[in-house]
Amino acid sequence: MALSPYQQLEQEFRRLHAFRGALSLLRWDAAVMMPRGSADVRGEQLAALETEHHALLTTPKVARLLERAEAGASQLGDWPRANLREMRRQRDHAIAVPPSLVARLAKATSRAEVYWVEARKAGDFKLFAPHLEEVVHLVRDKAALLGQARGLAPYDALVEVYTPGISTADIDTIFKALSRKLPGLIHEAIALQAERPLLPVAGKFTVARQRQLAVEVLKAMGFPFDRGRLDESEHPFTEGVPGDIRVTTRFDVGDPFSGLLGAVHETGHALYDLGLPLEWRDQPVGRDRGLALEESQSLLFEMNLCRSRAFVRYLRPLLEKYLQVSGPEWQEDILFRHLIHVRRSQIRMDADELTYPVHIMLRYELEKRILDGALAVADLPEAWNESLEQRLGLRPVNDVEGCLQDIHWAVGHFGYFPSYALGAVIAGQFNEALRAARPALDEEIAAGSLAGVLEWLRDNVHGVGARLPVKDLILHATGKPLTASAYLRYLETKYLEAP
Amino acid sequence: MALSPYQQLEQEFRRLHAFRGALSLLRWDAAVMMPRGSADVRGEQLAALETEHHALLTTPKVARLLERAEAGASQLGDWPRANLREMRRQRDHAIAVPPSLVARLAKATSRAEVYWVEARKAGDFKLFAPHLEEVVHLVRDKAALLGQARGLAPYDALVEVYTPGISTADIDTIFKALSRKLPGLIHEAIALQAERPLLPVAGKFTVARQRQLAVEVLKAMGFPFDRGRLDESEHPFTEGVPGDIRVTTRFDVGDPFSGLLGAVHETGHALYDLGLPLEWRDQPVGRDRGLALEESQSLLFEMNLCRSRAFVRYLRPLLEKYLQVSGPEWQEDILFRHLIHVRRSQIRMDADELTYPVHIMLRYELEKRILDGALAVADLPEAWNESLEQRLGLRPVNDVEGCLQDIHWAVGHFGYFPSYALGAVIAGQFNEALRAARPALDEEIAAGSLAGVLEWLRDNVHGVGARLPVKDLILHATGKPLTASAYLRYLETKYLEAP
Repeated sequence: MALSPYQQLEQEFRRLHAFRGALSLLRWDAAVMMPRGSADVRGEQLAALETEHHALLTTPKVARLLERAEAGASQLGDWPRANLREMRRQRDHAIAVPPSLVARLAKATSRAEVYWVEARKAGDFKLFAPHLEEVVHLVRDKAALLGQARGLAPYDALVEVYTPGISTADIDTIFKALSRKLPGLIHEAIALQAERPLLPVAGKFTVARQRQLAVEVLKAMGFPFDRGRLDESEHPFTEGVPGDIRVTTRFDVGDPFSGLLGAVHETGHALYDLGLPLEWRDQPVGRDRGLALEESQSLLFEMNLCRSRAFVRYLRPLLEKYLQVSGPEWQEDILFRHLIHVRRSQIRMDADELTYPVHIMLRYELEKRILDGALAVADLPEAWNESLEQRLGLRPVNDVEGCLQDIHWAVGHFGYFPSYALGAVIAGQFNEALRAARPALDEEIAAGSLAGVLEWLRDNVHGVGARLPVKDLILHATGKPLTASAYLRYLETKYLEAP
Repeated sequence: MALSPYQQLEQEFRRLHAFRGALSLLRWDAAVMMPRGSADVRGEQLAALETEHHALLTTPKVARLLERAEAGASQLGDWPRANLREMRRQRDHAIAVPPSLVARLAKATSRAEVYWVEARKAGDFKLFAPHLEEVVHLVRDKAALLGQARGLAPYDALVEVYTPGISTADIDTIFKALSRKLPGLIHEAIALQAERPLLPVAGKFTVARQRQLAVEVLKAMGFPFDRGRLDESEHPFTEGVPGDIRVTTRFDVGDPFSGLLGAVHETGHALYDLGLPLEWRDQPVGRDRGLALEESQSLLFEMNLCRSRAFVRYLRPLLEKYLQVSGPEWQEDILFRHLIHVRRSQIRMDADELTYPVHIMLRYELEKRILDGALAVADLPEAWNESLEQRLGLRPVNDVEGCLQDIHWAVGHFGYFPSYALGAVIAGQFNEALRAARPALDEEIAAGSLAGVLEWLRDNVHGVGARLPVKDLILHATGKPLTASAYLRYLETKYLEAP
């Protein structure tokens, strides 16, 4: 029997899924295994596969099949109809930006990245400015084209690339609530923590031992080592597809927590990918529901579940077992304080849970103003420094510690930053619902049993895939619309609780 | 300015080259890094990329461009013209076999492989026979179609897939010469070696130390660790492309030589790939000149250069340094005897340099008879056992040690076996020419300097790429047509020399 247009589309997207998996492996290998001199060869391979992926997605055949399938969409069930909607979105995105603009962006961003590195070395923003200007110019064009294709305002169209279903209006509402509460919360938490001094954690913790510890914790989380790997790389990341998922972290021999929590964070991503609906795993509807939700999964594990008293109770004997630690600084109370220590920093990557969203809101404000032309690239350093001073009471000592610290804008990732803070907010809301559903969660965590968490997430979040728009998914999982309330309640309880 | 048809073809094949590199990395990862449960996912990725590679190669556009470029071929220089010839061969091969037959072969061989494993477990050829029959049937169709497309006899067309430029007539001539000389040579060598007893090499040599030793030897050979890797896998192999080349070996803690010589063998392949003409590296003419020549490069290093007195002189201090060996069994003379020990075996993989070609000639004879119908699959075990008894005076105790020992036929690789023995013959001829050009070669090797070898190979073999047909390449490199003479002279000197 001949395949229906919808079934033919499934075949096409199955092939695209295999391409995505291959591309992911090429990137993983480049960061973890590849000889250092081979970047040129890998670049050619990635470009060839990406070009082909784009070509397969934008053929007239796919366009015709989409139109025919959409005409008969009312005959389809929930999942296929949602699948069709995601196919359409992918294809609209791919076709909206002409190859010539893609090529110019690729060229401009790779040049901008080089000059970003140079400017950081020289401590001179001016070296970077003209190249960032060029990138901004092209991203503006891209945003306008994407917006036209999707019926969205330009910045909203950029956000949709990373986190479909969240608008600037949503972000503004949430960030307003955060802006109102966080400064006071940060102030109070720091004052409170000053009354309870930290003991420094010192020692040399070999990578081999930290790795064994991380493997045990990841196993407790449910990471499947027969279908996944843990490796080391410059920056932690997750690559792969369900069925072959690979997380990395970076171990610091002077710090027993950063490598472990990096691995935990990435495993949050991996577990999400692994929990996606198996029967749709090679289709668009079987994918994650965008970056903010991805980040909610990694942060839920790293921040809400593992930077907790209960987790410290589970972790402490493991630290003794694998790292042979002993002494007063390894008491549960002290360790917990260590893991939730709040400190104002100029650097986003060094920020703690409480100050992190402030860094994001600063970037969100600035990138919107740059894109709509209200802020000139040349004026970025001063605007950055002023904004940070207003928000955190700090002024960067130089631009390397200021507006040159992140690579995102150099590589054209505008609309990406909000997902980090949205992820934290969503994690807070999931955390509240999860704890309501499992009142004994802290005992479970303290016993090293995270199976219940995973079960709840699979039922309520992971298993939905991309069938629902993100806000519907959150409503469906938590019984409440997306707001910052649960997140702020969680922060208040955690950081202002009685000593 | 518009690109000429030939230039457009170069663009198309550049893309195909990137696909080949990506496919190679996917295979490398599957054998070295992939979690054991992820084979299904990798299978889908490989199939998708292979299908796309095939589709890109067989588009009508490529056919049209080839015709137009061939019409103007007289205007092209040597290299582009040879490139065009190789493009044509690749495309003819790809188009000759219809996708339906490719799919049936894929299915039949993957089933046959399963039953090959089962038959080996059960020690029962009959479990495998019907599936081999099916594979033979399909390979016959494939051979006929390839032969039609290339104007060759069916079996010649299969050989051309692996080693273009060598015909059955060439193989027959060479194998006749080997058949005449080898039995006596084996007999004499074994008798001679019996007079000079071996001392057993015993000990436990950790993988980490064997690895360090192998790395030092590979560096002496010129393997570029900044653009390549050495890893471990079940069977040694080489994957990758010039610019990112990866060899593997398998270390045996009870045997300090097998892992090292496996790595040396694979590095012979890698150095060939690395020496291919850089400016043509992403074009068909910039590729290796087929399997027999590939094998000549790995065997030249493993057999001719490293299983030698001179190499033992270089190796012995390294064995002391890395493996801390001492005792009479580690004397140069004893070690050399160990490395060239001749022993009749039923198993090809266990065979030494001198008896190995006998195993190949047996398979060559049988696979031709199976394909042309003179030998029924059901009669294979008896034919195998008789042939081995005639050739080596051994009779396999069962089919697992007999006609079930190799995977090649199960996976449809007919026409492949001859390249192993041809590689040894070609290596023998290169070895003679190389030693004539570098009279002090043994001193160089003993001093651990293989730079001169590599220089000669690059000038005379590697740098030619696929510009010349293989027999012309050998004539060009050695001044003599391809025959078995130099190889037989080399074996006689090595195995019958005065004690």
